[in-house]
Parts: sequence; C-alpha cells; structure tokens
Amino acid sequence: RINADRLWEVIHEMAKIGPGVAGGNNRQTLTDEDGEGRHLFKRWCEEAGMSVAVDQMGTMFAMRPGTDPDALPVYVGSHLDTQPTGGRYDGVLGVLSGLEIVRTLNDLGIRTKHPIVVTNWTNEEGTRFAPAMLASGVFAGVHELEWAYDRRDKEGKRFGDELQRIGWKGDEPVGGRKMKAFFELHIEQGPILEDEGIDIGVVTHGQGLKWLQVTITGKESHTGSTPMPKRRNAGLGMARVMELVHEVAMDYQPNAVGAIGHVEIHPNSRNIIPGKAVFTIDIRSPDKKTLDTMDARIREGIATICEAMDISHEVEQVGHFDPVTFDEGCVNAIRRAAERLGYSHRDIVSGAGHDACWINRVAPTAMVMCPCVDGLSHNEAEEISKEWAQAGADVLFHAVVETAEI
Amino acid sequence: RINADRLWEVIHEMAKIGPGVAGGNNRQTLTDEDGEGRHLFKRWCEEAGMSVAVDQMGTMFAMRPGTDPDALPVYVGSHLDTQPTGGRYDGVLGVLSGLEIVRTLNDLGIRTKHPIVVTNWTNEEGTRFAPAMLASGVFAGVHELEWAYDRRDKEGKRFGDELQRIGWKGDEPVGGRKMKAFFELHIEQGPILEDEGIDIGVVTHGQGLKWLQVTITGKESHTGSTPMPKRRNAGLGMARVMELVHEVAMDYQPNAVGAIGHVEIHPNSRNIIPGKAVFTIDIRSPDKKTLDTMDARIREGIATICEAMDISHEVEQVGHFDPVTFDEGCVNAIRRAAERLGYSHRDIVSGAGHDACWINRVAPTAMVMCPCVDGLSHNEAEEISKEWAQAGADVLFHAVVETAEI
Ligand SMILES: NC(=O)NCCC(=O)O
Ligand SMILES: NC(=O)NCCC(=O)O
Repeated sequence: RINADRLWEVIHEMAKIGPGVAGGNNRQTLTDEDGEGRHLFKRWCEEAGMSVAVDQMGTMFAMRPGTDPDALPVYVGSHLDTQPTGGRYDGVLGVLSGLEIVRTLNDLGIRTKHPIVVTNWTNEEGTRFAPAMLASGVFAGVHELEWAYDRRDKEGKRFGDELQRIGWKGDEPVGGRKMKAFFELHIEQGPILEDEGIDIGVVTHGQGLKWLQVTITGKESHTGSTPMPKRRNAGLGMARVMELVHEVAMDYQPNAVGAIGHVEIHPNSRNIIPGKAVFTIDIRSPDKKTLDTMDARIREGIATICEAMDISHEVEQVGHFDPVTFDEGCVNAIRRAAERLGYSHRDIVSGAGHDACWINRVAPTAMVMCPCVDGLSHNEAEEISKEWAQAGADVLFHAVVETAEI
Repeated sequence: RINADRLWEVIHEMAKIGPGVAGGNNRQTLTDEDGEGRHLFKRWCEEAGMSVAVDQMGTMFAMRPGTDPDALPVYVGSHLDTQPTGGRYDGVLGVLSGLEIVRTLNDLGIRTKHPIVVTNWTNEEGTRFAPAMLASGVFAGVHELEWAYDRRDKEGKRFGDELQRIGWKGDEPVGGRKMKAFFELHIEQGPILEDEGIDIGVVTHGQGLKWLQVTITGKESHTGSTPMPKRRNAGLGMARVMELVHEVAMDYQPNAVGAIGHVEIHPNSRNIIPGKAVFTIDIRSPDKKTLDTMDARIREGIATICEAMDISHEVEQVGHFDPVTFDEGCVNAIRRAAERLGYSHRDIVSGAGHDACWINRVAPTAMVMCPCVDGLSHNEAEEISKEWAQAGADVLFHAVVETAEI
C-alpha cells in the first residue's frame, strides 16, 4: 500500500501554488503558476531518483529506470493544470499518485523490470486554450504540433509563445515514446461512486465530446429608441440556443449531457442591444450516434432560430473526441488490483475527457476513479477524503507494479 | 442660420479623439480620451470668447455673457462621452451645436440679453458607471454627490477617483445654477424621422426607464460528468430571463421596449456549468404604469424561473427615471423655430434618456431631434447628413436666441 499521508501532503503543497479565491486553485495552463508547479513537481521527482524529460509540448516525463534495459516503460500520470476556479484534486491526484508509487517502491527497495514514467500532460483543461487534452492529443497524433502552437487564448496569446515564455518548451519531439501501458487515476467528477458508497471506479469507457463555438451576428443598436420589430438581438439569439442545447440534452439523458459555459457578448453595454454573441456549446455522450444526432439537431436548431430573427451565425468545432473503449488488459489489471486489495468497485463510464482517452489510441490504457464529495468538480469546493485518495492510489500502484513486473 | 461646414468640421475633429475600430468612437466617460476631448472643447470655447467653469461632477459650463447682468442664462448642451462602440454624433452634436451658436452670434456681432451657457454633462452614457445621465442627475438633485462618487466600473474603480485622476474634478458645487431654460439637440437614435422624411423632431416627452441588475447563483460543476438532473445552471437561468424580458416587452410594444445588453458569466469556462450570471435588464415605456407593470411581471417571472431551477437570485435597480413631459414654453419655442425656418417637423417622444430629462425637473427644458440613418445609434456606424445637422442646429439656434432675447 502507498503512504496516504505523504500523498496528501504533496497534494496540499501543490495546492499552495496558484491558490483560488475559495479554497481551490487557479493554476491555468502556461501561466506563471503552472511554471512554478512544474518546478516543484520536477524537484520532487529528482529527489525520488527520477530523471525528468520535457517534450516540445511541455509535457513532463519523470522516469524510474527498470531492470531490463529493453523493456517498454509503464506510464502513469495525469495533469497539473487547473480550471480558473478549479479544485485541488482534478488531475493533481493522478500525477502525484504516480510520484507516490515511485516513493513507495523506493521505500520497499523494489525494482521493476519495466521502467515507470510519471507524466504531467500539458493543457488538459482546455479553458485557456481550446481544445482540452491538447498535449496528449498531439502525442497521440490527433493534432499537429504547429496547429497546437497556434491555439490562442482570449487575449490572443499563442500557445507556442506562452509555452516558451514560461520556459517549459522542451526539445524532445512529441509522440515518439513507446509505452507498455498507460494508467491514469482521476477523481470521478460525478456523483455515482459516492452515491453508491463504492471505493473504486474501474473505467471501461469514456464519453465522446463536441465543442461547438458559435458566433451570432445581429446589429448593435440603442436599447431605448430601437422599436421592438427592428431589433436584431444577438444576445436573445444566444439565449434561445442555450435553451435548445438544454432541451436536446434532456431528450437523450442520462445517455447525454449538454451546456454552454463560455459566453462573450459584444459590446456588452447596458444600453446597447448586443450586436454579436460568441459562445461554446459542450455536448457529450458515451454513444457516438447519439452525439452526432445531437450535433445535427443543434446545428439545425441554430439555423432556424437565427433565420427567424434575421441574424447570421457561424458554427466552428473547436474540440472533439469520439467515445472511448479502454484496453481490456489494463482494465482487468485495475479490477484485479481492487479485488486483491479488498476495495469495493464497479465499472464506470468517464463523463469527462482525460488524457487517457487520447493515449488509448497509441498504447494499452485504462483509468481508475475515486469518488469526490457531491460529485462536484470544476469548482473550488471540490473535495475528496484521504481514504478515497488512498484507495485510488493503492489500486493504481498494484495495477502499475503488476504491469511493470517485479 | 448657423455655419454647417464649421459645425461638421468640429464634430469630425472631436471624433479623432478616442477613435473606435469601425469608424465610430470609444471615448467612455472619465477615460484619458474623455479628458483629451474636454481639453479640446475648452480651447474652442475660450477661442470663441467664453469662460469655462467646471463643477464637482466634472460638468463643463462655457459662458458667453449677456448684456443684462441680472438676467438668468439660457443653457444649451449635451454630452461628449460615448459608448464603447459609439457613434460620432450621439451627444457630440448637441454640445458642439451650442458652440456653433455662439460662434454664429460672434460672427453676426449679436449680443443677447441673457447669457448663453454651453454645457458638457459628465457620464451621460452610463456604460462605464451606471446609471446614465449621472452628472445631470446630481445637478437636478436626484442623486447625492457622494453616492455618485461611489459608483464603480467593472474593474472596481470609483467614479470620484477616476474624475480626480483625469484632472476634471472642479470646485464648483453641483446644482446651484439657476437657468432661464435648457435646450438639448440630439440625434433621434430611432427610425421615425427618417422613415417619414421629416427634418425636425419636436420632443414633447421622454420614455421612462428602469435598469435592473440581476444576479443568479447556481452551482459551478463539470459540464461532462454532472448528470442533467443535478445541474443548477445559472447561465440557463439567465437565458430564460432574456426570453422573459423580450416577451414582456413584446406584449406592450410599441408602447414599450426591453432587452439585456450587459452580461457576465462566472467562471466563463467552456467545461464549467456557470455558477453565477450577472446581467442588466433595460426596460422602457413612455407610460409610467406600463413601466411599473413590466417591472413587476419581470421580477415575478425571474422568481418563478429560478425557483423551478433551484437557483437563487437578487434584483437590484441600478438606474431609473420616470417618463418626462417637457416644458410647454420651450417646446413651443422649438416648434416655432422649425416653422420660421421652413423645416418639416413633428412632435416626437424620446426613446432614449437624455440629460434634458433630469434638467427638466429644475428648469424649463425641451429637446430638438434630427434624424439618423436607419435609426441606428449605439453603433459605430451611426450616421447623419450635414443637412440634418444643419436643420437641427438652426432650430436650436433660433429657439435659444429667441429665449435669450436680443
Ligand atoms: N477531467 C477534466 O475535467 N478534463 C477537462 C476536459 C473535459 O472537459 O472533460
Ligand atoms: N441618449 C442616450 O443614448 N443616452 C444614454 C442613456 C440611455 O440609455 O437612454
């Protein structure tokens, strides 16, 4: 078993970097705080005897050598970046549990045949630079490196420039590494495990996602003196699309979800009818056909809404991944570990996207989930118990060590 | 008649300060650009032989003395501040037509019995600091000076501090001035005059307004892993209120209007269900009872919407004025001037709020309107013809000079 106190301590040490306003974190990708978090993680890894490599996307690979120089490494990890109002565990638990596994092996004096590589993937969250899971996506060959570098934040800053600025653009080409397996531990971010009182989610599948960025263009004009029939209110158009997305998701739930989290209104003045609205739709389903049907219904609905209001619209897909089926061998390793350790477990579908979803395309991959209080995530109040962290990290430990072979 | 070329020239000279991105202006109140515009206006006034006083709200009073030292001045003016995406004429036409009247009187060697005071009221637009018509409101005794100083912009900056910062906080107490009359020329900002091919709007009434700032609080959570029934989506609540405001306004139009121009979503991340939405409702009617009914229906509707969604809400009134009936004597002076000059005219109700609406409470007041292309205002593409400006300024000139007595 891993040392839960030690794991808990590093998690809360990391949480001091980029603190939020309500007990959580704001350590968004490629900010100074992200840079600071990386330095701390690097120091910990080196103190545990690992060597740290950085690729051209800024992803960090901390390696503990194996006994067989020809054996493929077993990878384990997640991400250290957070939402603007993020929790302390989302991503961080997975990376630092990787570190804890190595520390435990060191304590026990155990060497594995296969090297173990603890990984911190860059820009998992996708808030500052869409899409999410950007670096793991480049690693898996889904995106081009140059395309990733060209992603821009709201202020127009380029991903590539910001990576350079914080000093974490490495030399290693992205994606060349061969993996025996990749394991990711993550909090569930949903309520199922807690509701059912279960310790461990064995993640068999991941939901698919589409992010559709919509731009609606009406006409700016005076809120007081423009007659109602003459208005071309882009804000009202946006409101109708918000309702549409909700309705479509409700039609397919619990097999789907949908919402709009990001909104910009122009010029955003109390007495100007909005001339432009830009916002991003997030729809998800574990079933590809459902996701495609939702996409089509929403696009059609937007066109109908905008036509009726004499306003124009554009829809651009800024994020996408298909539903994922994880590797049976890795999934079984996790289920076996939970059983061996006596933790209650159930199979589960991940509602969120994870780096594991992309890595699954290039290496045998699976995920472990532990509960979080009230299913709450992407909220500073995100919370887990030390016992849940222990269970998750123990299962990860056993699955990794079994795969890396003693 | 006034010199339309000279008027046109100063309008476009002023438009060079705080240019917008699409041919209009961004010279918001108490910005450096506002300060620069004030200096230019002051220089022009002094060159025309006027002395310029500034009160504690930053309002500028440029006086051309009369022949009778005991005669009350006739005031004329409007505002030089603009929307973030404002036009070149909104407000500016009224202030600089006041200057043009004085220049014309100088050219003609005419002295009036009553002094003429050209006025630039501070913060008419209300975008940066709500409410609109702030300085004229303090002048008319509607707001306290200290309350006005405490208004804050989005970044939390205080009105009083910003006024000091740009160097336009004067010593003169606000509101002590007695006026024989106040006249304001303004573009219509609506389509009626242009549609009917009429040169001059004789403004008999002004619509009443309410600004209701609404804060809806739900719960931030993950867009992917939060089941649909567990969501408390503040953004969706806002969308429903947008639709409600539109519906209520449609029920009373053409006797009412309503829209939402200002929106903030928290934390505004693509994969976070909005936990909070703050936005401002703008409703107007020339009929006080209708305005009150709309207000009540909207507040009730918001409560119903939020209760059904298990989200909480607060409504704060951040702007308000009752419908206005302008002074009969002043209105007649304008109608007579239009007739004397042979301009076509009609009575009209102002859809927008104006400084004249507040000043009407403390002095005989009326307004002249001229058409604007397509009724478009609060848009950088706002446009008028030089002939329309000429007609408006001519009528203003005659009404002012008749009232100031030669
Ligand atoms: N786990 C997580 O929150 N990932 C961010 C990408 C997503 O929105 O699912
Ligand atoms: N004229 C004008 O646009 N005034 C601003 C206040 C309002 O919104 O009516």
